[in-house]
Amino acid sequence: MTRTIVASATREIIIGFDQPFCVIGERINPTGRKKLAAEMIEGNFDTVIRDALEQVAAGATMLDVNAGVTSVNPNETEPGLLVRTMEIVQGLVDVPLSIDSSVTAAIEAALKVAKGRPLVNSVTGEEEKLEAILPLCKKYDVPVVAISNDETGISMDPDVRFAVAKKIVERAMDYGIKPHDIVVDPLVMPIGALGDAGRQVFALLYRLRNELKVNTTCGLSNISFGLPHRHGINAGFIPMVIGAGMTSAIMNPCRPQEMEAVRAANVLNGTDPNCGNWIMSYRDHKPGEAVAASTAAPGASSGRRGGRAGRARPE
Amino acid sequence: MTRTIVASATREIIIGFDQPFCVIGERINPTGRKKLAAEMIEGNFDTVIRDALEQVAAGATMLDVNAGVTSVNPNETEPGLLVRTMEIVQGLVDVPLSIDSSVTAAIEAALKVAKGRPLVNSVTGEEEKLEAILPLCKKYDVPVVAISNDETGISMDPDVRFAVAKKIVERAMDYGIKPHDIVVDPLVMPIGALGDAGRQVFALLYRLRNELKVNTTCGLSNISFGLPHRHGINAGFIPMVIGAGMTSAIMNPCRPQEMEAVRAANVLNGTDPNCGNWIMSYRDHKPGEAVAASTAAPGASSGRRGGRAGRARPE
Repeated sequence: MTRTIVASATREIIIGFDQPFCVIGERINPTGRKKLAAEMIEGNFDTVIRDALEQVAAGATMLDVNAGVTSVNPNETEPGLLVRTMEIVQGLVDVPLSIDSSVTAAIEAALKVAKGRPLVNSVTGEEEKLEAILPLCKKYDVPVVAISNDETGISMDPDVRFAVAKKIVERAMDYGIKPHDIVVDPLVMPIGALGDAGRQVFALLYRLRNELKVNTTCGLSNISFGLPHRHGINAGFIPMVIGAGMTSAIMNPCRPQEMEAVRAANVLNGTDPNCGNWIMSYRDHKPGEAVAASTAAPGASSGRRGGRAGRARPE
Repeated sequence: MTRTIVASATREIIIGFDQPFCVIGERINPTGRKKLAAEMIEGNFDTVIRDALEQVAAGATMLDVNAGVTSVNPNETEPGLLVRTMEIVQGLVDVPLSIDSSVTAAIEAALKVAKGRPLVNSVTGEEEKLEAILPLCKKYDVPVVAISNDETGISMDPDVRFAVAKKIVERAMDYGIKPHDIVVDPLVMPIGALGDAGRQVFALLYRLRNELKVNTTCGLSNISFGLPHRHGINAGFIPMVIGAGMTSAIMNPCRPQEMEAVRAANVLNGTDPNCGNWIMSYRDHKPGEAVAASTAAPGASSGRRGGRAGRARPE
């Protein structure tokens, strides 16, 4: 059984087929959040602190931490800022972190200060990335997200995306990294633009689970980009990917509808023993009530979201 | 490609893997609805009429019609009452009907008055049932729901349930009924009582689709029996069974959360071309709004529900 182990200073979490779905909170990310970027540049971490606390209160299993505030000279600014952000988040909450950066120096700097066993987010199939990131993962003995694109971009052919994932897993093995420490992102396309996006991902997940036997993740809300009532699409997508074998997602845990879908899918997938978490979350649920988990932080669903994709419209 | 064709007087609907999920409205059913049973016995069809209109307005693809008002001498009362109910419903709405009865004479009486091509609900693997129902399906050239239990009851072993389904399909072929006219119900157990109920159904659906190549259905809300916030479990279950290959369900279309899950899963499963139905249903959806489809009839979510399973508690 594939088990990817991540840890904070004191808590170990297993990502695996027989485990509750791992929700990686996406909000600590200035990409597309100008105000947050400006705050972080000024050394104001109020929003980071709030996002960390709210996401954990809402049920995040892990937190993604990104400090990419600028595309100008990120090599100079990002390592220091990512380290500072990591230290603040680690001082506040005790969940494993995902170190999210496209700057190798920032990833290494963050690995030096990370407590426990963080997840590196990410490596791709690009030669330059493979050679930069995989040795770091080996050196620090940490798992890594492998995004299934390479120098040629993101293929629209799922077989090519599978081949890229396979290449990364094989290259990682050359560096002494086991497949259970590779968490493949099969890349989720917007269903509004590509009607086959759902079935592509389901088919890829089946192969990734059964042929490569790896854990998987995705930038979940990409699926609904451009559509009205995105939460409804996201909430339908979550049980489908969980049923198809996905074991984690980078998503916004402060969305009650999405988190309800995660909890329901855990029940149905047999990873919520005796429905314990479901019953605890919804025992006081009132019939007419809007979808909301009793564990969600007040006001947690307000605010704009960063994440991997921009948004066509505010919701 | 497996295609089960059902029809009303003027509309043909295809149940199939490449079709939108077929929602069979469950509400016209006095089982567990004492007030409705009493009304129907008195010849008062007000609730039947309301249930028919509301379910179609809420997006039901078909309507199940059950007139089992009594367990005392149903052979005497049920044929006439089912015929009358069918005629009333057919006069009101133009969707295909499912003739739901455990009384063979009632099924035949309903088949005589049914317009188009109704679905018979149901036959089981019991010898007596097979011999009574299959000849009728052949005579009237109609498809039938095949419930995967037999004289020994409902097996907790999914392999046995598969074998029962296979037996029914084979027996139907002996009568000249094609597998595409058998819609198998793999039987959904309450997840609160049987933690493996979800995975059992997903595995059964995979075999039914790939080995028997049949369409499938279930009494959907059984899955959440006994749990708090049943709509949340149902709404998570729907995308999972659709992803696993289920093509229809007997359910309450007047529940906005469940219907939203159906619509989202259709988008993600590639059976809502250009997301047309989703966009039409939710284009005016407001962010903070409770989950609700714009096509749901006002007040449609009130009222108690009949269906296959009793309920542990009102919701």
